[in-house]
Amino acid sequence: MKKVNVGIIGLGTIGSGVYKILNQRKSKIKKEYHIEIDIKKCCDISEASRKRLKIPKKNFTKDYNDITSSNEIDIVIELIGGTNVAYAISKEALKNKKNLVTANKALLAHKGRELRKLSTANDVSIGYEASVGGGIPIINSIKDSILVNNITSFWGILNGTCNYILTLMSEGIDFSKSLTMAQKEGFAEADPTLDINGKDTAHKVTVLCQTCFNLNLNVNQIYTQGIEDISSYDIEVAKNLGYEIKLLGISRIINKELDARVHPTLISKESPLANVENEFNAILVNSNNLGPFMGYGYGAGMLPTASAIVADIVRVSSSANNQSNLQPEPKLSLKKFENVKSKFYLRIMIKDIPGNLGKVTSILGKYKINIDKVIQNNISNKLKVIPVIILTKSLELKVLNKALSTMTKSKLIQRGSLIIPVEDFA
Amino acid sequence: MKKVNVGIIGLGTIGSGVYKILNQRKSKIKKEYHIEIDIKKCCDISEASRKRLKIPKKNFTKDYNDITSSNEIDIVIELIGGTNVAYAISKEALKNKKNLVTANKALLAHKGRELRKLSTANDVSIGYEASVGGGIPIINSIKDSILVNNITSFWGILNGTCNYILTLMSEGIDFSKSLTMAQKEGFAEADPTLDINGKDTAHKVTVLCQTCFNLNLNVNQIYTQGIEDISSYDIEVAKNLGYEIKLLGISRIINKELDARVHPTLISKESPLANVENEFNAILVNSNNLGPFMGYGYGAGMLPTASAIVADIVRVSSSANNQSNLQPEPKLSLKKFENVKSKFYLRIMIKDIPGNLGKVTSILGKYKINIDKVIQNNISNKLKVIPVIILTKSLELKVLNKALSTMTKSKLIQRGSLIIPVEDFA
Repeated sequence: MKKVNVGIIGLGTIGSGVYKILNQRKSKIKKEYHIEIDIKKCCDISEASRKRLKIPKKNFTKDYNDITSSNEIDIVIELIGGTNVAYAISKEALKNKKNLVTANKALLAHKGRELRKLSTANDVSIGYEASVGGGIPIINSIKDSILVNNITSFWGILNGTCNYILTLMSEGIDFSKSLTMAQKEGFAEADPTLDINGKDTAHKVTVLCQTCFNLNLNVNQIYTQGIEDISSYDIEVAKNLGYEIKLLGISRIINKELDARVHPTLISKESPLANVENEFNAILVNSNNLGPFMGYGYGAGMLPTASAIVADIVRVSSSANNQSNLQPEPKLSLKKFENVKSKFYLRIMIKDIPGNLGKVTSILGKYKINIDKVIQNNISNKLKVIPVIILTKSLELKVLNKALSTMTKSKLIQRGSLIIPVEDFA
Repeated sequence: MKKVNVGIIGLGTIGSGVYKILNQRKSKIKKEYHIEIDIKKCCDISEASRKRLKIPKKNFTKDYNDITSSNEIDIVIELIGGTNVAYAISKEALKNKKNLVTANKALLAHKGRELRKLSTANDVSIGYEASVGGGIPIINSIKDSILVNNITSFWGILNGTCNYILTLMSEGIDFSKSLTMAQKEGFAEADPTLDINGKDTAHKVTVLCQTCFNLNLNVNQIYTQGIEDISSYDIEVAKNLGYEIKLLGISRIINKELDARVHPTLISKESPLANVENEFNAILVNSNNLGPFMGYGYGAGMLPTASAIVADIVRVSSSANNQSNLQPEPKLSLKKFENVKSKFYLRIMIKDIPGNLGKVTSILGKYKINIDKVIQNNISNKLKVIPVIILTKSLELKVLNKALSTMTKSKLIQRGSLIIPVEDFA
């Protein structure tokens, strides 16, 4: 019987869930894995959680050092969020040769390299299954997979809030009402900025790139476009063309360059990602031996996230070997998004004057932009401005931007242009 | 550095793939996991494979006992298929305290209980990730998951041959031509009987029930209906109603009874399983904490299967603990399919005589069968027999069977009836 002592720092929703599930499953883990996991100490700034969870006083502290420096603790569970104190805690834990389990994608996105170096130097592991796709065992599946496989790309619906909003919008509800509904259902935070603007997804792309490619990106260099500018009209038009609009985190290796980005994307209705609705997440990973693999499930929520953390604790406890051996990073530079070739969905607002559409298409022609489809619906509009949708063939974004700039200069189009990449895959 | 010696028995397509991938990834596994895996001995009935793979003579044998009884071997990889010699090999390996890795779902379906008992008695593990959904790490995900979760049900597209054929049929190609095309593409065996009639899926349902519920079913007691009787017409009608037809392996716990079955199924186009096309597999697992989780990927093929086996070898090697500790089986009896309540798609062939459809619906009424929809297309037909499709509300199959039998006795319907359950989920 192996004995493992854990300390939980942060007893919010997730921390409380971990406390409960660990205690619930303790005897099963003991029976089946011969591992006895004890929660030696919990830490929180307030005693309210201690009382609520009926944690004995001797097992509680307000000073995280009582956990990170304790000789008794084998695994530190960091669940306070943020990147300052959480970083201090994680560093201390690893330096003191304790394994670390965390759900903190922002921390990993910003400090992943340092933490991984520390873990290797101290021969301990970092478990972070819960940081991406809460209820989907994607991180550990990837870790197992890269031993037998080279991963070449991934596409992920990584933010439940955005996916829930886009699902409502595809039913005709507008953005702001969808957001309010998401907040009511508990799928969006009071301040949903980081979700809506794609930053949360960019954090997760960074963590996935660390896992898939052993690459530490600067999260701020990842092209990141949120869902704020999508309208129900775009979703409707896309649908009629056979597409769904999803906020995707994308990464792929193209000729020793890494293409990594976050943006709303038109994907074919036939794609396995297209049926991922509501608050669900999914990650599609391509690799040379296994081919495409997709995991689908809840991306967040108390029970899925807490369960993933407990599974990580068991994994870290039962593994004979530290799995965070840092290998040299591959030499891959980040490809600028404007140099990536893609098909695009372009929405422009043109003045409803006969001949204007012809002028627009002739500008596109001047830039050698091939058009797949043009859609112009006569939407009654006081401003006499109508949305025109253009589906392009494959080209570099910078060319499209130049054409758009020419149209603006020619006063053909008004404010409200929108560019969404189109991805054909699987 | 931990040293692990493996012996491969069976050097067919999969065995050769395992030999190659293990050698390719050896140094990576060594670097990252501190495990040195050596292929000590390979066994095959013919020397052709030895020559092809350039295996030194001293590392080759035609007698599997040289592997199962060797003091040098830690893990035996059984890849000969079938249930006779493969069973003898597996038994010997486990008795001699060797871990076993296998892709043999028929063996596990028929002899799983005995093998798991032996592995527990001898404190060794059985790795069988490759036996279900080759390229999908579903078995190990479930094993991790049941530590923190109670699984309540699963739905799986588990046979790539059938899914490929159904995909072609949904494009209007008939069954026999689709089968020929599947054989040409290498997605169907020369003798595809076990795929087409659902037996292969039933084997996998049995293996999944062992993994999810710790339950050893008699595979012959699982209701199993193949895809032979599906026509392109059924798929087209289903599509117009918002459904896809997929061959599913289904299992769920209902009030201390286990509902386990294999049959073509109408599933909503909105379901995450609906977009699983061509030779792909997918398994949707429901559990109390993680919620629904789905894994999607290749179900078979040399590289995915061989990769899954190599991943299993690493998992078995790196785990400090044997994970096949046999717990007492739960007391769950198998629910008879005819007693399971479900909606049904019913296709009957009625004689094209005015009034016959009325007689049919009045028989359904007599049995208190509520109808959701009736579809009768006038298909010109020399025999003056037309297919009528009836979508029922939820009822027990035995009631529907009685109604059908009454229709037959009344000579209202001809041969060619078909019943397909309809599943509403996710």
